[in-house]
Amino acid sequence: MPSDSRKPLLRALAGEAVWPPPMWLMRQAGRYLPEYRAIRAGVPDFVALCTSPDKAAEVTLQPIRRYGFDAAILFSDILILPWALGHGLEFKEGEGPVLPKLRDAAALDALSLDRVADAVAPIMETVRRVSAGLTAEGFSQTALIGFAGAPFTVACYMVEGGGSRDFAATRALAYADPGLFGRLLDVLTEATIVYLSAQVEAGAEALMLFDSWAGVLSPLQFKAQVIQPTRRIVEVMRQRYPHVPIIGFPRLSGMLLGGYAGATGVQGVGMDTSMDLGLAASQVPAHVALQGNLDPMALVAGGDALQREANAILAAARAANRPYIFNLGHGIVPQTPPDHVAALRDLVRGA
Amino acid sequence: MPSDSRKPLLRALAGEAVWPPPMWLMRQAGRYLPEYRAIRAGVPDFVALCTSPDKAAEVTLQPIRRYGFDAAILFSDILILPWALGHGLEFKEGEGPVLPKLRDAAALDALSLDRVADAVAPIMETVRRVSAGLTAEGFSQTALIGFAGAPFTVACYMVEGGGSRDFAATRALAYADPGLFGRLLDVLTEATIVYLSAQVEAGAEALMLFDSWAGVLSPLQFKAQVIQPTRRIVEVMRQRYPHVPIIGFPRLSGMLLGGYAGATGVQGVGMDTSMDLGLAASQVPAHVALQGNLDPMALVAGGDALQREANAILAAARAANRPYIFNLGHGIVPQTPPDHVAALRDLVRGA
Repeated sequence: MPSDSRKPLLRALAGEAVWPPPMWLMRQAGRYLPEYRAIRAGVPDFVALCTSPDKAAEVTLQPIRRYGFDAAILFSDILILPWALGHGLEFKEGEGPVLPKLRDAAALDALSLDRVADAVAPIMETVRRVSAGLTAEGFSQTALIGFAGAPFTVACYMVEGGGSRDFAATRALAYADPGLFGRLLDVLTEATIVYLSAQVEAGAEALMLFDSWAGVLSPLQFKAQVIQPTRRIVEVMRQRYPHVPIIGFPRLSGMLLGGYAGATGVQGVGMDTSMDLGLAASQVPAHVALQGNLDPMALVAGGDALQREANAILAAARAANRPYIFNLGHGIVPQTPPDHVAALRDLVRGA
Repeated sequence: MPSDSRKPLLRALAGEAVWPPPMWLMRQAGRYLPEYRAIRAGVPDFVALCTSPDKAAEVTLQPIRRYGFDAAILFSDILILPWALGHGLEFKEGEGPVLPKLRDAAALDALSLDRVADAVAPIMETVRRVSAGLTAEGFSQTALIGFAGAPFTVACYMVEGGGSRDFAATRALAYADPGLFGRLLDVLTEATIVYLSAQVEAGAEALMLFDSWAGVLSPLQFKAQVIQPTRRIVEVMRQRYPHVPIIGFPRLSGMLLGGYAGATGVQGVGMDTSMDLGLAASQVPAHVALQGNLDPMALVAGGDALQREANAILAAARAANRPYIFNLGHGIVPQTPPDHVAALRDLVRGA
């Protein structure tokens, strides 16, 4: 089909310098929206919300109805995959995720790839409902993004047993027992391929791999633990679904971003808040779309600060004259006023 | 004097590609050493240790006696400066530092530059004792490094009231009230100049500015909050003490490191664990020494992992053929076996 009949996000991920840029926001379905909080209040826990197709589809669509973004991203969590593998997962109020600590072969062997497809079946129903909902509600320009945590980042939470500032136990295990850690990454890589393939079959038009903790690694470890598993996922997925682009987001990878983009074969890279778009444009291969990277706290502030920060990014993206997708550098935060999001959307649309 | 009669660390910071490289380790005086723990056990709190010249000098010298490093770094804390300005500071067991939250003009106006010189006087006595101790104990090749937190990072702790994963309240204040935040940075910049000047007068031969949270900022904010205050400090200090080099450490600045090095005028830059030495060498001006960046968890692991990681860094440093100082990418952690440090020292000396 001619490129201008495709959705703007998919055009950008196909290498086109679409302007004004397509936009969406990480965690756009979430607590800053009163309509989200209303649904969340009626669900016993977070995993239940992720695995209730009617509710998960509803919250996925909420920000599209409000703002008409160029992408809807499946409402789910990167830790659904270890949960689907049979690893425990609990979200405790004010504490974040709590998981059993995976530190030995017995815990690794207890993971079951065979469970994944059935466990994630309700999430595929969510994808189908969102896909149908976008069409039914007339959002013909909005692409549906599926996602997973990248193997290293998911492994971080499994080894550490939850969040951490620097995932020291994970790095220690990777050094002390590279065989065990490598096997864990292999299992997660294969499970991710199963999970993402199912999302595509259910209607996801693009995919994103969140490697939120890639920045804690040395360059050598980054190659083994971030680039290699990501490359394998991209290779298999692109072979199966050549029309479905993949965005990799190795957060805080800094000067390693360019090498990551080239070596993994992704069609787009997410930039965290600390990255300079002009420098990234000079380091990332020209056909790879850049995505990002407004500071979520500038969106909280609104007004002059928001305009200054957003305009600096838009000016750099315009000057780079390459495929670009406007987004935040990290997830939107709960205290964000919804009308600041509308102001940002207008600013980007008017760029 | 001829360059080869000077201490190796100072030669590297003067732009010479000294080989094997001089080395020291961030937080080399600390809990991984039993002799440190013995002294720490007898002191009521951490601030008391930092302001007891006999004990602080003793723990500064301990790692030099054990390992003969090329630099001793004053034992103190980056939060001594807010404490010296009259802001509260408490270290709670297992919680880290706790400070009052600075969020308004009244709290800012309560800071007193006039208090600083007297408050830090005991620390200057520490510097004098370490300087004399290095000479008396025959460590003629060991340089004495003084340090401070960079204004942005110190402001982070003051606004947030302690540590944080992403210092969201600090970034929010900087966007919402740039006037107030700018005034805070100005006060901290002037206080830092007073503090560092006193350290040089007491015998510090090089200085380091720790900007541990520089990586949470957008490029625009990085310019205003990291580069500008650092440049001002470097300008004034280099005018007063042209022979005293300054190492800046904008942690997690990623692709912004090269611009930082050029714009601030520092003589050396610290690299965190995530940075690639070969890439940093191509982005940082050639006369600026690179310092870093072994993963502290590789030092915990020891053995093959330690050798592989350290050798990769040494090979890249050798190939870069430029001034370089071996160090960690972050502070040494308490669970590090002291004999791994000795093995690392031998490996670097034999490079």
